[in-house]
Amino acid sequence: MIYLDNASTTKPSEAAIRAASDAFENFGNPSSLHNLGMAAEKIVTGSRRKISAAIGVPAKNLYFTSGGTESNNTAIFGAAKALGKRGRHIITSKIEHPSVYEPFLSLENEGFDVDFIKVMRNGRIDIDDFESRLREDTILVSCMHVNNETGVIQPVDKLKEIMRKKSPNAFLHVDAVQSFCKIPVRPKEWGVDIMSISGHKIGGIKGTGGLYITGSKIRPYIMGGGQQANMRSGTENVPGIAAFGAAAESFGMGDTVKMRNYLRDRIKNEIENVVFNGDNEYNCGYILNVSFLGIKAEILLHSLEKHGIYVSTGSACSSNKPMPSRTLTEMGASDKETTGAVRFSLNADITKEDTDFCIEKLKEELSVIRRYMR
Amino acid sequence: MIYLDNASTTKPSEAAIRAASDAFENFGNPSSLHNLGMAAEKIVTGSRRKISAAIGVPAKNLYFTSGGTESNNTAIFGAAKALGKRGRHIITSKIEHPSVYEPFLSLENEGFDVDFIKVMRNGRIDIDDFESRLREDTILVSCMHVNNETGVIQPVDKLKEIMRKKSPNAFLHVDAVQSFCKIPVRPKEWGVDIMSISGHKIGGIKGTGGLYITGSKIRPYIMGGGQQANMRSGTENVPGIAAFGAAAESFGMGDTVKMRNYLRDRIKNEIENVVFNGDNEYNCGYILNVSFLGIKAEILLHSLEKHGIYVSTGSACSSNKPMPSRTLTEMGASDKETTGAVRFSLNADITKEDTDFCIEKLKEELSVIRRYMR
Repeated sequence: MIYLDNASTTKPSEAAIRAASDAFENFGNPSSLHNLGMAAEKIVTGSRRKISAAIGVPAKNLYFTSGGTESNNTAIFGAAKALGKRGRHIITSKIEHPSVYEPFLSLENEGFDVDFIKVMRNGRIDIDDFESRLREDTILVSCMHVNNETGVIQPVDKLKEIMRKKSPNAFLHVDAVQSFCKIPVRPKEWGVDIMSISGHKIGGIKGTGGLYITGSKIRPYIMGGGQQANMRSGTENVPGIAAFGAAAESFGMGDTVKMRNYLRDRIKNEIENVVFNGDNEYNCGYILNVSFLGIKAEILLHSLEKHGIYVSTGSACSSNKPMPSRTLTEMGASDKETTGAVRFSLNADITKEDTDFCIEKLKEELSVIRRYMR
Repeated sequence: MIYLDNASTTKPSEAAIRAASDAFENFGNPSSLHNLGMAAEKIVTGSRRKISAAIGVPAKNLYFTSGGTESNNTAIFGAAKALGKRGRHIITSKIEHPSVYEPFLSLENEGFDVDFIKVMRNGRIDIDDFESRLREDTILVSCMHVNNETGVIQPVDKLKEIMRKKSPNAFLHVDAVQSFCKIPVRPKEWGVDIMSISGHKIGGIKGTGGLYITGSKIRPYIMGGGQQANMRSGTENVPGIAAFGAAAESFGMGDTVKMRNYLRDRIKNEIENVVFNGDNEYNCGYILNVSFLGIKAEILLHSLEKHGIYVSTGSACSSNKPMPSRTLTEMGASDKETTGAVRFSLNADITKEDTDFCIEKLKEELSVIRRYMR
């Protein structure tokens, strides 16, 4: 099996599984007063320390959620509730993950004024356009760090400085689900107010995410027993949290970037009628999005699958909906380009032999499909 | 170790751990188009079938969440959003779990009119009082099935019939987190519109809950990629869901009820100055709440802990907050009764020898504490 769908989800690492198994034994409720509870609480605290260290923030500012989607929902709805009386203007882009985009549409329905930053042909947001949209009553800006479909890095390190001048009250939310552990993520240095991360993209287990919040700026979204300083109620998912911490600590990129570039170079040199989507300089190093013109990506996906090669069309979240990629469309891609777009997302497990095998099968299957489509 | 804190959380069952481990290998994203995704989707579907069968509802009406707290938040906020234009009157009780109670307070802040059903001295809601509070503009009633502190069963099977006459538009939400798998739960027969359940109370893994919804009656609370028919977005926690299904399928009460009653009888006959909290006839059969008058429950908890006996003061969710139990206070318990209240919550693992040992140590430690407190 050559698994090239790591932007969708990853195989849990051995360290993560060990940590989860340990938490199956240390099964107490972290809120219980007895020592079984304390042992569970200690696991949570340890993971919080590991993950906050990985992004250079104080442990007390990190909260655990059920995943990137809940983190993004909490950030956006929580900020809108906290600041909604100060202003009703909020900004994002149309290439955000649906768990950001949908909450923005929902807020628009509730009467918020939503602005979308222009996205350039290379998949990056237009920073001048961003600046021009900021207003005094802007209360929230949400921008992803790495796009989940193209792997393009957004200039999230530049946004707060611009915001300080024109929208001093606004919070900056960054969805760092696809960048965490893969490229440097430094929310404190960048002035990020709220940041989302996820466990299952880095070898953790599905069902655990994180939310960094500077201070108690936003309203809680999930309420109840007051766990996690009342910011996120609900019995903590101790095994998932344990796995998240272990995964973050042990994650490595290895030769991922090198293999991703090797894959790109060989496709570029050896396959005709391809378009690479997204800037190659500002790429996270593990995602390669290629449009094979004249084919349907889904057919290629299933052809490669026969050889044990797993790729994706667009993002998994929306790949079971028959809609052209919002990201590629917003970047100005043609119908042909969106229809033929395949995402390869690598991790450190991939070898040169894997990549060579992948190229060989890609060429083989493409020539069959293209002959058939003609 | 004699673990008598099963209402707080349970040790994952072997079946649950096996199912989770299997899902660590079948690690695909259920939304992915390739067969790794389908294998993961199959796990989710299988668990959905097992759990929905356990409560006698169609599988398509069951959604997975991150736990009982999220289920309760989704039910209440989702119903309020869906029906808020038809009416602003909502009803619950003051003995609900905080993940129901806090959302009601939050809705009250937003302008909803909240009514609390009177609770009787035996811990049951007053059904006549309930009927008298229903209005034409009532849109939501939320009532727990089994109280998490006392184990008292509420007459949730009677509510909908009364509601149909006076508040035909209102939804009935039942928090069945503490009853699921332990006593019969039949939402369809009772006319329940929305029901919450949780995995980690029945030998599943923390971080997974369920929400039964008849039809698409409520608004989604967590939005994004449109997973689970758009009712609950976010990549499914496949290992947690697998464990939930396996736990539900393999859960058994064994001699739990017998041992609970044996424990009660011996305490009643052999220990002085005790008050049993909550009706004994309408008890779920695994929770025993006893006030040992003249002592602080927390001291007894730590004394028993030395012998490997784990009990709880009130519920775990709020036990790390120095507040008298809202449930016992609402039932009319005195300060002395709330201060000395200990919850024993059993499962099928407990033997007669365990119970005897527990009684022996209870008597020993109580006599020491009471001598000291005098």
